[in-house]
Amino acid sequence: MLASKILKTSKTQGKTSTIHEKLLVKGGFVQKLSAGIYQFLPLGFLVYKKIYKIIEEELEKIGFLPFLGPMVQPGDLWKKTGRFKSFGSELLKFKNRAGEDYVLAPTHEENTALIAKITLRSFRDLPLALNQIQPKFRDEPRSRGGLIRLKEFTMQDGYSFHRDLKDLDLFYQIVKSAYLKIFERAGLEAKVVQSSSGAMGGNKAEEFMVKSEAGEDRIATCLKCDYAANLEVARFKDRIIKEKEKNTEEIKTPNASTIEALAKFLKLDAHRLAKIVFFVNEKDELIVASVLGDREVNERKLAQASNSAELIPAPEEKIKKMGFEPGFAKPQGGGKNVKVIFDHEVWESNNLVTGANKKDVHLLNFNPKRESGLKSLIADIAEVKDGDPCSQCSGKLKVEKAIEVGNIFQLGDKYSKDFKISITNEKGKKISPFEGCYGIGLERLIATVVETHNDEKGIIWPRELAPYEYYLIYLGEEAKKEAEKVYEKLEKSGKSVLFDDRENSPGEKFADADLIGCSKRIIISEKTLSKNQVEIKDRSSGKLELVDFRSLEDYFSL
Amino acid sequence: MLASKILKTSKTQGKTSTIHEKLLVKGGFVQKLSAGIYQFLPLGFLVYKKIYKIIEEELEKIGFLPFLGPMVQPGDLWKKTGRFKSFGSELLKFKNRAGEDYVLAPTHEENTALIAKITLRSFRDLPLALNQIQPKFRDEPRSRGGLIRLKEFTMQDGYSFHRDLKDLDLFYQIVKSAYLKIFERAGLEAKVVQSSSGAMGGNKAEEFMVKSEAGEDRIATCLKCDYAANLEVARFKDRIIKEKEKNTEEIKTPNASTIEALAKFLKLDAHRLAKIVFFVNEKDELIVASVLGDREVNERKLAQASNSAELIPAPEEKIKKMGFEPGFAKPQGGGKNVKVIFDHEVWESNNLVTGANKKDVHLLNFNPKRESGLKSLIADIAEVKDGDPCSQCSGKLKVEKAIEVGNIFQLGDKYSKDFKISITNEKGKKISPFEGCYGIGLERLIATVVETHNDEKGIIWPRELAPYEYYLIYLGEEAKKEAEKVYEKLEKSGKSVLFDDRENSPGEKFADADLIGCSKRIIISEKTLSKNQVEIKDRSSGKLELVDFRSLEDYFSL
Repeated sequence: MLASKILKTSKTQGKTSTIHEKLLVKGGFVQKLSAGIYQFLPLGFLVYKKIYKIIEEELEKIGFLPFLGPMVQPGDLWKKTGRFKSFGSELLKFKNRAGEDYVLAPTHEENTALIAKITLRSFRDLPLALNQIQPKFRDEPRSRGGLIRLKEFTMQDGYSFHRDLKDLDLFYQIVKSAYLKIFERAGLEAKVVQSSSGAMGGNKAEEFMVKSEAGEDRIATCLKCDYAANLEVARFKDRIIKEKEKNTEEIKTPNASTIEALAKFLKLDAHRLAKIVFFVNEKDELIVASVLGDREVNERKLAQASNSAELIPAPEEKIKKMGFEPGFAKPQGGGKNVKVIFDHEVWESNNLVTGANKKDVHLLNFNPKRESGLKSLIADIAEVKDGDPCSQCSGKLKVEKAIEVGNIFQLGDKYSKDFKISITNEKGKKISPFEGCYGIGLERLIATVVETHNDEKGIIWPRELAPYEYYLIYLGEEAKKEAEKVYEKLEKSGKSVLFDDRENSPGEKFADADLIGCSKRIIISEKTLSKNQVEIKDRSSGKLELVDFRSLEDYFSL
Repeated sequence: MLASKILKTSKTQGKTSTIHEKLLVKGGFVQKLSAGIYQFLPLGFLVYKKIYKIIEEELEKIGFLPFLGPMVQPGDLWKKTGRFKSFGSELLKFKNRAGEDYVLAPTHEENTALIAKITLRSFRDLPLALNQIQPKFRDEPRSRGGLIRLKEFTMQDGYSFHRDLKDLDLFYQIVKSAYLKIFERAGLEAKVVQSSSGAMGGNKAEEFMVKSEAGEDRIATCLKCDYAANLEVARFKDRIIKEKEKNTEEIKTPNASTIEALAKFLKLDAHRLAKIVFFVNEKDELIVASVLGDREVNERKLAQASNSAELIPAPEEKIKKMGFEPGFAKPQGGGKNVKVIFDHEVWESNNLVTGANKKDVHLLNFNPKRESGLKSLIADIAEVKDGDPCSQCSGKLKVEKAIEVGNIFQLGDKYSKDFKISITNEKGKKISPFEGCYGIGLERLIATVVETHNDEKGIIWPRELAPYEYYLIYLGEEAKKEAEKVYEKLEKSGKSVLFDDRENSPGEKFADADLIGCSKRIIISEKTLSKNQVEIKDRSSGKLELVDFRSLEDYFSL
């Protein structure tokens, strides 16, 4: 390809927030239309097609059949699974001119279940594995970070159906390996971590995480054992305060409305205090969360535990109205539109300090099990922090930012049941097939590759994703003729080469070559020609080679 | 591929309205989610990918660069070209949770202009040809007819930018040839006809039409010369009544409120009457259309002429309110919110009969040029009917139903100007590039192929679109082993073969082979094996061949 045709790098990149966005915009790979909406320019679409092909290849190898579902789906389909209401406001709904409900699908369990319904007739049809690579939409309120959190995005989403959980788990492991292979081919070191199944429903869920400062996820990894989990589900080793229960006692604590102030005033370790945090969910329920004083609440865990799609901090007014004294609240009571949720550590501990639900008064020797009503929920809602002990081996946990590049779920039989998919198994028993689902976001994957493969000059694409393998530059008119000949030869033999035929300065050509990050840069100049040589530089290692002009064909093995 | 994996034909096909929908649903190629929303099942997606590849190949050959734009686009982008308002109600608009305007793009001129804007720096960057194959959405009120008129659909849409109209026209002709090649490879006989540029704006426009009873378009083709046009723009040879103007005269015409009744009452040829038809458009304007009495109004022409996005018949109340007497109306006057539009033939004719705008009274010797106000519009709004004389050669025009499988437009500089794309040409003059756009709907193309390639048993795919080239059937256990060997050999050598490994009856296998329409059916049975032969039947010609088992490799040239 001629650079004059496809190479449209720019000197500026507008307002960009992340390294990958800066480099992809500057390099002319993508163009932003508005927050969360981008388009792939021809140069970027080459990379997109390469990752598309890798994914397609690895998944067809393990038996996935490609299909294609629509992004716009009838609302009725989503009402069948209850997700028309329960998905939360990331699900974009609209009415068409006839007043019918539609959604822009952010995931495709519903229509895939319809395929399973007409496809599966007997247990002999199982397993069935379907895959598509297709655009999706999420009504993202915070589409920052370039291509990591998009509104419209391309997703590979695979779905498999099985006769039992054992067969599902077997296939799930096979997909996990294929995913690791895909990420490896894309040059990424992806770590498999435990995760929450969230809006998908179902049981087992894992994510593929690539460490990066640009990541919006945080993962805890044990420095000693193999434990690794998203903070949404990660758990430290509990430290329970086990003592003989004492009688509760009120104590004046003027102005000690924060954990810090209270610990200082009582000269107690914050771990002995029951912290209360208030949220409101989309159903307008007050969620009262209690963790020990030196812990923080993980909102995603709390959302899951409280069956909320979204949580926002509760306004003081709301807290008071529901009978709690802000700063001095007691995690007790509840009732209509109030959910009190204890973290395990709080629930199991004795003689904690908590509020007395009166201004400037706390309560000593609070024993949650003894004092709190039956309506309390007990769940894992505390957040792991760097240095916490591992729940598996007590080793030290490290918390790091990461980008989620893929996820896999064991959905169980939720969708099979919602769509009444029933088949007779080999024993003549009617069963609902068990389902797994598997997803990779293409744009996010590309963003992650750039975040982790760059230097101050530009992108360093992994070999399989580079838009072109070779970037060919000539210096001087004499060299131009030779370069044209080399270009023609390479093109004819099917090599992937970008020939910089532009009339730009050598400096600009070198800068663009580094910016767009093809694997190898070839320079043909009067200087190299005078020695009968060509200079070839590896973008990744920076290693220079001088290859004899006459043995070039051997070098490229044409 | 094993038929047990991918072949999911059904005995029924639910409610289907057209031949292609019946065959595609029954054959397990597609599944309907709701009116206008379908998904491609694995078997159907194979066909989809084949047409995708043909289009991609032919367009890359002529220099199109592939890119990828989003379906969801910011409303602001569409406000820049005025199409946020002017496109009509097929443009689906919605607000996201932040209250921002978005559209589901039904065509991609806006975002493509943005690419041109950052890509084009000098005349040396021209021509620029961009192409994508991507999903689109139209809020179709009448999504009947299976895959022909979908809500969400896949479209190849190419855009090219040029230094002048001459260069645009040159490239336009090249694209036209490439399109004809695409349709030829897809097994279609496509006819190029003149068309209207409609919502795209611009000048020259042509469509690729395939004759079919399932078509929603009608085309006029001259039986004598090469004239061919969509009825939206087709014109007969005018028959003007040229006489010396006489004085108007009122005449009582009791109850003669229709053309038929009036012609009978006055004993006049309907061609001497000026027919008036009333419509209301989306701006609530009354559109008063006048054609000669033996003509019909073509609504698409009238919409174009009256600058309306949509027209509906005007209610009688509205007609009266605006000062016209229904059945006895006079095409005159107008004013605020009324547009009077004369077809050329009416405008140029003399001494016609029209209404007097009084009940049961007509007017003789109506001379439009003499009597009608300056506010009248004159346009081509009459519809060609079968047998009308050709405007080019006076030969007979034939009107037929057809499916539009593609269209090409010369847009001119509308979008270049809207987006202020300005480059310096070789003479140092600032110009806005001239644009062409080119589109093929993939689902509609597949539907058209099935409509035109079938028999009572099923689909007969053109060779390049068949999901598999060979459909391999064995009859009897003995033959199964041999068939498995043949299957393995064919697979290994890269042949596209579907092996019917199912335990269905021979009759069902034959029926499915015919239904899904692979190019050749191979039968290995004990009977053929006893003669050391294999039976190969061509789906299209029905021709049977008996090939010696030992020379099979030669036959397949493995």
